[in-house]
Amino acid sequence: MTDTNTNMRLKLPITCFILEIILIILFGVLVEYDKETDARKWHHSNHSEYDNDFYYRYPSFQDVHVMIFIGFGFLMTFLQRYGFSSVGFNFLIAALALQWATLMQGFFHGMHGGKIHVGVESMINADFCTGSVLISFGAVLGKTSPVQLLVMAVFEVTLFAVNEFILLNAGGSMTIHTFGAYFGLMVARVLYRPNLHKSKHKNSSVYHSDMFAMIGTLYLWMFWPSFNSAITAHGDDQHRTALNTYYSLAACTLSTYAMSALTAHDGKLDMVHIQNAALAGGVAAGTAGEMMLTPFGSMIVGFLAGIISVLGYKYLSPILESKLKIQDTCGVHNLHGMPGVMGAIVGAVTASLKSASYQGGIQAISLAVTLGMALGGGLLVGFIMKLPIYGAPSDASCFEDSIYWEVISAYYDEGQSSLVLLS
Amino acid sequence: MTDTNTNMRLKLPITCFILEIILIILFGVLVEYDKETDARKWHHSNHSEYDNDFYYRYPSFQDVHVMIFIGFGFLMTFLQRYGFSSVGFNFLIAALALQWATLMQGFFHGMHGGKIHVGVESMINADFCTGSVLISFGAVLGKTSPVQLLVMAVFEVTLFAVNEFILLNAGGSMTIHTFGAYFGLMVARVLYRPNLHKSKHKNSSVYHSDMFAMIGTLYLWMFWPSFNSAITAHGDDQHRTALNTYYSLAACTLSTYAMSALTAHDGKLDMVHIQNAALAGGVAAGTAGEMMLTPFGSMIVGFLAGIISVLGYKYLSPILESKLKIQDTCGVHNLHGMPGVMGAIVGAVTASLKSASYQGGIQAISLAVTLGMALGGGLLVGFIMKLPIYGAPSDASCFEDSIYWEVISAYYDEGQSSLVLLS
Amino acid sequence: MTDTNTNMRLKLPITCFILEIILIILFGVLVEYDKETDARKWHHSNHSEYDNDFYYRYPSFQDVHVMIFIGFGFLMTFLQRYGFSSVGFNFLIAALALQWATLMQGFFHGMHGGKIHVGVESMINADFCTGSVLISFGAVLGKTSPVQLLVMAVFEVTLFAVNEFILLNAGGSMTIHTFGAYFGLMVARVLYRPNLHKSKHKNSSVYHSDMFAMIGTLYLWMFWPSFNSAITAHGDDQHRTALNTYYSLAACTLSTYAMSALTAHDGKLDMVHIQNAALAGGVAAGTAGEMMLTPFGSMIVGFLAGIISVLGYKYLSPILESKLKIQDTCGVHNLHGMPGVMGAIVGAVTASLKSASYQGGIQAISLAVTLGMALGGGLLVGFIMKLPIYGAPSDASCFEDSIYWEVISAYYDEGQSSLVLLS
Repeated sequence: MTDTNTNMRLKLPITCFILEIILIILFGVLVEYDKETDARKWHHSNHSEYDNDFYYRYPSFQDVHVMIFIGFGFLMTFLQRYGFSSVGFNFLIAALALQWATLMQGFFHGMHGGKIHVGVESMINADFCTGSVLISFGAVLGKTSPVQLLVMAVFEVTLFAVNEFILLNAGGSMTIHTFGAYFGLMVARVLYRPNLHKSKHKNSSVYHSDMFAMIGTLYLWMFWPSFNSAITAHGDDQHRTALNTYYSLAACTLSTYAMSALTAHDGKLDMVHIQNAALAGGVAAGTAGEMMLTPFGSMIVGFLAGIISVLGYKYLSPILESKLKIQDTCGVHNLHGMPGVMGAIVGAVTASLKSASYQGGIQAISLAVTLGMALGGGLLVGFIMKLPIYGAPSDASCFEDSIYWEVISAYYDEGQSSLVLLS
Repeated sequence: MTDTNTNMRLKLPITCFILEIILIILFGVLVEYDKETDARKWHHSNHSEYDNDFYYRYPSFQDVHVMIFIGFGFLMTFLQRYGFSSVGFNFLIAALALQWATLMQGFFHGMHGGKIHVGVESMINADFCTGSVLISFGAVLGKTSPVQLLVMAVFEVTLFAVNEFILLNAGGSMTIHTFGAYFGLMVARVLYRPNLHKSKHKNSSVYHSDMFAMIGTLYLWMFWPSFNSAITAHGDDQHRTALNTYYSLAACTLSTYAMSALTAHDGKLDMVHIQNAALAGGVAAGTAGEMMLTPFGSMIVGFLAGIISVLGYKYLSPILESKLKIQDTCGVHNLHGMPGVMGAIVGAVTASLKSASYQGGIQAISLAVTLGMALGGGLLVGFIMKLPIYGAPSDASCFEDSIYWEVISAYYDEGQSSLVLLS
Repeated sequence: MTDTNTNMRLKLPITCFILEIILIILFGVLVEYDKETDARKWHHSNHSEYDNDFYYRYPSFQDVHVMIFIGFGFLMTFLQRYGFSSVGFNFLIAALALQWATLMQGFFHGMHGGKIHVGVESMINADFCTGSVLISFGAVLGKTSPVQLLVMAVFEVTLFAVNEFILLNAGGSMTIHTFGAYFGLMVARVLYRPNLHKSKHKNSSVYHSDMFAMIGTLYLWMFWPSFNSAITAHGDDQHRTALNTYYSLAACTLSTYAMSALTAHDGKLDMVHIQNAALAGGVAAGTAGEMMLTPFGSMIVGFLAGIISVLGYKYLSPILESKLKIQDTCGVHNLHGMPGVMGAIVGAVTASLKSASYQGGIQAISLAVTLGMALGGGLLVGFIMKLPIYGAPSDASCFEDSIYWEVISAYYDEGQSSLVLLS
C-alpha cells in the first residue's frame, strides 16, 4: 500500500457525497415527523404542551449524545499520534451512522403507513446503534482509512437493526455492547496484520494523550446512568435504571483500582485499566439495570465486572493477539465484550428470579443470536473491508495522524524527538 | 505601542470595577424576580410546583451555557500560544455580557411597571446575546486587549438589543450569528493591521492546541439542537427544532469532511475545516428549524452549509484579507456569516411556502436590517476600539498569551524551541 | 519513607476490596429502593409516570455529577506532573465516598423501618458529601497516597453526616464548603512537611496543565447554579436559587479579573486566580441563594467573594504556610473556606432581614458547629492519616505521578528537560 493509495482526495469525497445524497433522498421519501414533533398531529390531540415527550427524554438524549461524540471520541485519543483521527473519524462515522440508523431502525421496527416516524425516541435509538459502531471502531483503531470505516458503519448499522428486529427489541442495552464488540473483533481478525510491529512504537500513549483520554472516560462514566435509562419506560423504571447503574459503576471503580495495582509488579496503577475497566460496570448493568436488581445486586455486578475487565486487559488481550490473531487496539473485548456477555447472563438470571423463567430464556437466546449475528456479520464485513480500494495505511504507518490529516511539520522531526507533538 | 502600554495593572481593574458597579446599581434599581422565581408571585397563583418553567427550560439553558463558556472558549484555543487568552478572555467578556444583556434586553423588550423581570427565559436570552459578542471576538482574536474587548462587549450588546427591538424578535437565532459575524468583521476591518505578518508564526496551531479546540467544536455541535430550540414555544415546536438541527448538523459533517479532502492537493483533512465548517449546519438551520422544514429539508440545508463553509475557509478568507483588509482570525465569516445569511434565506423561503409570503417578507427585511445594524455598528465601535488607550498588543506580539498573562519562563526559551509549551 | 513503602501492590487492593465488600454487605442489609424507584411502591399510588421526581431532579443531579468528577478532577490537574493522580485519585475517592455517604446520610437522616431509602435525592446528597471530601483533597493534593485518601474519605464522610445530623440539615450548601475546607486545612496542618521544598520545582503548573485545569474551572462555574439548586424545594425556590447563583458568579468573575491584574506588579493575570477565585461567588451564594436575596444582592455577594478570594491567594496563603504551617496545595481556604464563611454570614443576615431573627441565629450557630466539627475532625483524622503505614510519598517525591502510576520512561529524562511530559 503506497502513499498514493492512502490519498483521500477523491475516495473520501465520493464516498461521503454518495452516501449523504442517498440518505437525503431516502429521508425525503420515507421519513416524517412523529406525533410529538408534527405541528398538526400534536395540536390535534388534547393535552398540555408539557406532556410532550421532549421534556422526559431530551435531557437523557443529550447525555447519550455527549457519550457518543466526547465519550467515545476522547476515550480513543490515548494514542500519542492519533488524536486527530480518534476524535475526528469518530465524529465522521457517528454523523453518518446516526442518519443511516434512523432509516434502518425505522424500516425494521415498524413503518407507519409506509413512513418512518422520527422524534426524540428515534434520536436516542440512532445514537445507541451508533455507539455499537464506535465500539467496533475501537477494535480496528489506527489500522483503517476513513473510507473503510464509513463502509463498516453502513453494513454494521444495517446488521445491528436486523439483529434488533429478530430479537423484537428484547436484548436492550446488552446488544449494543455485545454486538459492537464481537463484530469489531471479527473485523479485526479478518484485517489481521502480521507486520503491525512496524508501527509498534506509535501504538502507545504519552502523558497528555492519556489526560485527553480521561475526559472521554469520565463522560462515559458519569452519563452511563443516562445511557442505560434513556429509553426505558417512564416513571420508576427509568429512575431505577439510572440508580442501579450509578452503584454498579461506583463499585466497579473500586475493584478496577484494586486489580490494576494488584496485577502490576511494582504496584503502580495503569492508565489503560482506569480509562477502560472502570466503565465495565455500566456495561454489565445494562440489561438487568431496569429490573429490580437492587443497589446490592448492582454493586456485586459492577465489582465483578471491574475485576474481569482488568484481568482481560492484563492476561487475555495478549493471548487474543498471539493465538487468535485479533489485534484489538482499544481492548473492546475487555470493556464491552466480556462485560456485555456478563450483563446478558445477569439479566437472564434476574429475569428468571423475579418473573417466569420464560423471560430468562428469552434473554439467553437473545445473547446467542446477537453473538452469532455479530461474528457472522463481522466476518462478512471484514472481507468487504479488506478489498484494497479504501486507502488503508501501510503496516509502518498505522497509528499515525499524518497519513490522513494536515499536521504541522515539526511533528515529524524524528531527529529531535522532543519536538514531537510540538511546534 | 510599548510594553508599558499593554500593562493592565490599572486599565483592567478600573474598567472591570466601574462596569460591575454600574451593573450592580442598575440591577438594584431596575431588576426584580419574574413570576416564576418570586416566592410570593409564584405561590399566589394556583398551580403545581412542577409547572414552573424552570423544568422546561433549564436543561436547555445549561446546554447553551456550556456552548458559551466551553464551546466558544475552547473552539478558539487552536492558536499555539493563545490558549489562556482564548478561554480566559472568552470567560471575562461572557460574564460581563450576560449581565449587560439582561439589562438591555429587559429595557428594550418590555419593562413591567418600570422593572425588568428575570428568570430562566432572560438567562437564555442573555446567553444568546453573549454568543453574538463571542462570535465577534473570534474575528479579532489575538489582536485585542481585554479592556478593548470589554468595551466592544458593552456596545455590541446594546446594539444587539436595539436590533432585536427593531425586529420585534422576528429574526430569532439568525440575528445572533449574522449580527455577531458582520459586526466583528467590520471591527476587524477598522482595526486592520498592515504589519500583522510580524506575528504570523504564532497565528497557527500546534498538535495539542488543535485537540483542545476539538472539545469546543464537539460541545457546540452536540448542543446546537438545544441552542436553536431553547427559547422556541413549548411542545412540538421545541421538539421539532431540536430534531431538525440534529439532522442538519449530521449532513453538514459529511459534506465538510468531503470538501476538506477534496480541496486539499494531497487529500489530507484540515483541522480548521473540521473544527468550524462542521458547525455551519447548526447556524443554517437556526431560523427555519422551528418551522415544518422536515428532516429532508434540514439535511439539504446542512449539506449545503458545510460545502459553502469549507469553500469560504479555502478561497474566500484569503481574498477578504488581501482585498478587503479584513483579518478574520477564526474565519467567523465562514462559520457564522455566510451560513447565517443562508439560514435567513431558508427561513424566508420556508415561511413563504408554508404560510403566507408575508412571513417570508418579514424574514427578508429582518436580514437586511440586521446586516445594516451590524455593519454600521461595527464601523462605529471599531473606531471607538481603535483609540490608543486600551493597551492593545503591538503587531509583533499578537497571538501571544504572555502579554497579558503570567506564563512560566521556559515557555519563551526560543533557543530551545522544544521547550516551548513545556516547563 | 522508601520506595518500597510507596509500593501499592498490596496496600491499595486490600483497602479497596475490604471497603467495597463492607459496602456491598451493608447495602444488602440496609438499603432499599424509595417510593420513586420501587416498581411496586410507585405503581401502588395513583399518579402520572411524569410525576416521578426523576424528571425534576435528575438533570440537576447530572450537572452536580459532572462537577464532582470533571470539575473537581480537572481543576486539580494544574500541577505539571500530577495530572494522572489529580483526576485519577479524585475519581477513586469520589466513587468510594458516594457509596459510603449513601449509608451514613441514610443512617443519620432517618431510616424507614430499619431501611435506608435511595433515589435521586440520595444520589444528589451523596454527591454533595463527596464534594466536601474532594475539597479536603485539594488541601493535601500531591502529598498523600491513595490509601491515605481512602481512609480520609471514610472518616470525613462519617463526620460530615454527623454534622448534618446535628444541624438538622439547616446548614445547606454552606456546610459542604466550610466543612470540607477547614477539615482539609487541619489535616494539612497535621501532615505538615518542613522539607516540602525538596519537591518545590514540581509544585507548579505548565502551559497545558493550566489549560486542562480550565476545563475543571468552567464546568464548576457553569453548573454551580445547578449545584446550589439541586436539592432545594421544587418550583420558584429551585428556579430562584439557580438565578441568584448565576448572577453571583458573573459578578465574581469581573472582580476576580480586576483583582488579579491589580495585585500583580506587571499587571498580568494569574491563572491561579482565574481558575479558583472566579468560583468563589458560587460558594458565597450557597446559603442565601434560595432566599429572596435578589439578583442585586447576589451580585454584591459575588463581587466581594471574588475580591476576598484573590486577596487570600495573594497575601493570606503564604502566611498560612509560614506562620500556621498549613501547606494548602490548591488554596482551598481561599476558594471554599473564606467564601463559605462569608456565605454563612450572608445567609444569617438575609434570613434575619426577611423572616425572624430566629432563622438568622440558627444559621450562625450552624456555622459555629460546622467549624468546630471540621477542625476537631480534621485534627483527629489527620493523626490517623499520619500513621506511617499508607505509603505516603517522601518529601522529594511529592507532586509526582510516577510514584503511583505507570508513566512512560521519557517523562523522567531530566537530562533533557524538553522530554518531560513527552514520549
